[in-house]
Amino acid sequence: MTIRVDNLFTNLPERSSSEHSLSLYENRSVKIERIVSRSYSSPPGFWYDQDEDEWVIVVRGEATLEFEGGELVRMKEGDHVTIPRHVKHRVQQTDPKTIWLAVRVRC
Amino acid sequence: MTIRVDNLFTNLPERSSSEHSLSLYENRSVKIERIVSRSYSSPPGFWYDQDEDEWVIVVRGEATLEFEGGELVRMKEGDHVTIPRHVKHRVQQTDPKTIWLAVRVRC
Repeated sequence: MTIRVDNLFTNLPERSSSEHSLSLYENRSVKIERIVSRSYSSPPGFWYDQDEDEWVIVVRGEATLEFEGGELVRMKEGDHVTIPRHVKHRVQQTDPKTIWLAVRVRC
Repeated sequence: MTIRVDNLFTNLPERSSSEHSLSLYENRSVKIERIVSRSYSSPPGFWYDQDEDEWVIVVRGEATLEFEGGELVRMKEGDHVTIPRHVKHRVQQTDPKTIWLAVRVRC
């Protein structure tokens, strides 16, 4: 068999895109995504409220997450958090080029 | 609630350890691990033969994986592969300090 190698830092999306997601692995229980955020903020008043646990790491750049209740979590390169399902959160702000790796755990 | 932030590059294992694994997230369907490999090779003749799909990325350093049949896969920073369950493989060699992120998908 031939094993396919891809690189997280190639084939980045156009600069015009403020947030872009690429699926790297997916089955019924888990999805692994690369997310490229360019000076991205979630829309005002928008909260993610997900059915999945999400484990997420900042691979390049920096970002600040906001959690319901006002807690701000500043993340730099290598920082990772687990966001349990239904914990409401939003992206307050990212750097001009932030690359995340997110693992969404469905069950 | 308080969200806990950890960093992938802190609390690295002692230099005496040639391979060290740390669980970052685990439930019944998935396990996310940091693996630190210091000039590591799998023992001669040893093959991983796993019940899980494994998605793995080299976050720091370089490494070469060997697959049954002789295929060698050289991986540098940012390179990622999916190793389907029961595809036999071993670590041929890593750099003096290679940091992997591995997602093991159990179902």
